[in-house]
Amino acid sequence: SPSPSSSSSSSSSLESVVSSLKWDEKGMLVAIAQDADTGMILMQAFANKDAVMNTVTSRKATWYSRSRDKLWIKGEESGNFIEVTSVYADCDGDSVIYLGKPRGPSCHTGAQTCYYTQLDGPDGAIANNQVKEHKKDFAHTHEHGAGAAPTATPTLLALQRTIADRANEPVVEGTKPSWTRRLLSNHELLCSKVREEADELCQALEKNEGVERATSEFGDVLYHSLVLLHAAGGDVNDALATLRARFNQSGVEEKASRK
Amino acid sequence: SPSPSSSSSSSSSLESVVSSLKWDEKGMLVAIAQDADTGMILMQAFANKDAVMNTVTSRKATWYSRSRDKLWIKGEESGNFIEVTSVYADCDGDSVIYLGKPRGPSCHTGAQTCYYTQLDGPDGAIANNQVKEHKKDFAHTHEHGAGAAPTATPTLLALQRTIADRANEPVVEGTKPSWTRRLLSNHELLCSKVREEADELCQALEKNEGVERATSEFGDVLYHSLVLLHAAGGDVNDALATLRARFNQSGVEEKASRK
Ligand SMILES: [Zn+2]
Ligand SMILES: [Zn+2]
Ligand SMILES: [Zn+2]
Ligand SMILES: [Zn+2]
Ligand SMILES: [Zn+2]
Ligand SMILES: [Zn+2]
Ligand SMILES: [Zn+2]
Ligand SMILES: [Zn+2]
Ligand SMILES: [Zn+2]
Repeated sequence: SPSPSSSSSSSSSLESVVSSLKWDEKGMLVAIAQDADTGMILMQAFANKDAVMNTVTSRKATWYSRSRDKLWIKGEESGNFIEVTSVYADCDGDSVIYLGKPRGPSCHTGAQTCYYTQLDGPDGAIANNQVKEHKKDFAHTHEHGAGAAPTATPTLLALQRTIADRANEPVVEGTKPSWTRRLLSNHELLCSKVREEADELCQALEKNEGVERATSEFGDVLYHSLVLLHAAGGDVNDALATLRARFNQSGVEEKASRK
Repeated sequence: SPSPSSSSSSSSSLESVVSSLKWDEKGMLVAIAQDADTGMILMQAFANKDAVMNTVTSRKATWYSRSRDKLWIKGEESGNFIEVTSVYADCDGDSVIYLGKPRGPSCHTGAQTCYYTQLDGPDGAIANNQVKEHKKDFAHTHEHGAGAAPTATPTLLALQRTIADRANEPVVEGTKPSWTRRLLSNHELLCSKVREEADELCQALEKNEGVERATSEFGDVLYHSLVLLHAAGGDVNDALATLRARFNQSGVEEKASRK
């Protein structure tokens, strides 16, 4: 297990910290690439010491290709680099997370993430179909998250995808459309709901209605705002990236930048 | 690489899909546990076929302990199970994601995630301090995300932590407090901003102000709502979990449940 002692961030210190990670008998550890905003896990492969060092110093996610016996900088051929903002090791030092932003699909199939095959869902066991579907839908997915095959996705991104799916759902005679569909087809209703839910969230605080009520109203605001964002053609990924950039500044700068 | 062909989700089909994954020479693959709501990567370890099968069938994240040469159901001793909602394999079948909810800290140190050691940040190379700090702060972290040492965290959760940190920042004479701090100390100002930003988001759609404006206003709504949620003692993790439960229903049920 790692026992780093210096708090300097010079490259010699970095090298000693990286060296102290727990490398397996082949000199490898598990390196996971994750979207810094949405939390989507993009891909996983093995990295040697040079690959981790190259990732930190070049800011491009790098692994070790055993088949070609050399460093593999993801995107060096396709241009689809994963630009790394920070690197974390786990408690026993045998795996790292490359937290960053993908500049294009992360999977060689053209999918956003390599994890598009659900083992335990209704669509389990149709890996090949999912690859095909995912390729076809990537352009739309990139635009605003619609139509993709199910992938391992945290709630906010999954919610955006559900909203996009509801937008495209077929109208079944004798069945009322979903609430999401109704909101998307009636912007007056949608905007009145966004304002109403924001007001309800405020009242939860103003009238001291309790933490459960505030949490539920926060969810209402988030969901209706996501529907509005979809209606306006936006993507939550971009909104989160903007927020992250704003908040990577210090408190003082944050305030100044808001004037 | 996997070549599953059946679309049935019976357990014999599941077993054949799991068998077709790409097991290494020791019969293992990489299994990553991820919080289904926040996207936080909780831990990573190796799993054999029995461990993946046990995860899918018992819904408790399971790995293989090489030191004890047996299945390791995370939480079997501590009670801190990771309850798995879905399992995804990657494109070449040599790793899986256990997407689920942790019932307590995931790391044996008491930290929420094993990934609390940043290799490339200003705090890099102080792993031991971080473990200590993280232990100390876990109770507060669990409450509403404040005070924890930096961990690998997607934007929404990182933003909640930043807000909590600003709430606790020392007041420096001659320096104006951060905008977040001002909002937290003036609920009237905070609520007026939440209502104002919701209105601006609506106007972006109503007045067709374009996708960039809508994206930016969505970010404003999200940030100010998160500040309000903190002021009310809430946690974005709970809000996301509530939303996920609501949207795992079909469109029709979703609408009915909102009445
Ligand atoms: Zn580990
Ligand atoms: Zn892939
Ligand atoms: Zn759409
Ligand atoms: Zn309402
Ligand atoms: Zn409401
Ligand atoms: Zn793989
Ligand atoms: Zn750990
Ligand atoms: Zn607090
Ligand atoms: Zn605004």
